[in-house]
Amino acid sequence: MAETAAPHGYIHNKDEYLKRLRRIEGQARGLQRMVEEEQYCIDILTQVSAMTKALQSVSLGLLDEHLSHCVVNAVAAGGPEADAKLKEASEAIARLVRS
Amino acid sequence: MAETAAPHGYIHNKDEYLKRLRRIEGQARGLQRMVEEEQYCIDILTQVSAMTKALQSVSLGLLDEHLSHCVVNAVAAGGPEADAKLKEASEAIARLVRS
Amino acid sequence: MAETAAPHGYIHNKDEYLKRLRRIEGQARGLQRMVEEEQYCIDILTQVSAMTKALQSVSLGLLDEHLSHCVVNAVAAGGPEADAKLKEASEAIARLVRS
Amino acid sequence: MAETAAPHGYIHNKDEYLKRLRRIEGQARGLQRMVEEEQYCIDILTQVSAMTKALQSVSLGLLDEHLSHCVVNAVAAGGPEADAKLKEASEAIARLVRS
Repeated sequence: MAETAAPHGYIHNKDEYLKRLRRIEGQARGLQRMVEEEQYCIDILTQVSAMTKALQSVSLGLLDEHLSHCVVNAVAAGGPEADAKLKEASEAIARLVRS
Repeated sequence: MAETAAPHGYIHNKDEYLKRLRRIEGQARGLQRMVEEEQYCIDILTQVSAMTKALQSVSLGLLDEHLSHCVVNAVAAGGPEADAKLKEASEAIARLVRS
Repeated sequence: MAETAAPHGYIHNKDEYLKRLRRIEGQARGLQRMVEEEQYCIDILTQVSAMTKALQSVSLGLLDEHLSHCVVNAVAAGGPEADAKLKEASEAIARLVRS
Repeated sequence: MAETAAPHGYIHNKDEYLKRLRRIEGQARGLQRMVEEEQYCIDILTQVSAMTKALQSVSLGLLDEHLSHCVVNAVAAGGPEADAKLKEASEAIARLVRS
């Protein structure tokens, strides 16, 4: 559902998110190297946990920005748009909690 | 802790793990594109959850192989090596559960 | 931080939450019985996972109600109260995602 | 699947597990009291996260004991019993990671 009006919350921090996602991409390549070199399972698992934590913190950042910009703007505007935005945010939170 | 003797459990499935990790690397690039193009926060969060699930299933696969090869071999050999291997596996499981 | 003004979001569903929490209390007693009777570890672990899921869904429900009532009211009132409420909600979400 | 032969791993720590599960039961009652008294949503969510962590650590303890007793005994005995026990342990770990 494309948000037309105000820019999304994360955009003022766009470079920071790109930097973190590039690092995560690097971690994915690093895992491939570890498997290529047949490194020890537990060492690979340790890196996977680190990458999962990095992804988790990106998602918590995006969610925080979404709540304080997109959801706040919709709530300020009121009406069905606000309800849809809140429902959507809750569903995204549920996906995060359950992933 | 480098495992010297028997090859690690996952090695007979090495190509499969490399393929899945390349896909995860592609997902990381896809997320960068979404941020670059300033796509909607919720759509990005949905992709982050999908990538987290993909990572989770790689880790569960590696752990399963580790238990049924590295831990089994150590248990069969017995002695302190087996205890160390079991402790190490439990710590890796705890990191996974808590990440 | 006690919310004085509008009643909390979940209160209109209070009986439902009490029912679910009583069931969770029953699950905790059930686990004690399983341990008392020295039942098989895996069967106990299966019940622990079920209880964790039940707790998770209570927390997602409470969070959804909190966003759509307490946070919305604070945003509508605007000012520092709204910022505090959003920050608090994000921290609660982070605790949930990381637990 | 009832384990007939050796006693389950956790039994030598039975009292400790019963104590922790009684505390978790108490937390469930505490949550009911908080809802009964219409306490603030975020304070209730904080307690839910604490209870989830307590459950998580019970499950990690049980799993560690299961690996180092039930799985080790089955591996020492060898044959299909060992494979079944390893598969079962991996499935329990997957449920924990995904809950």
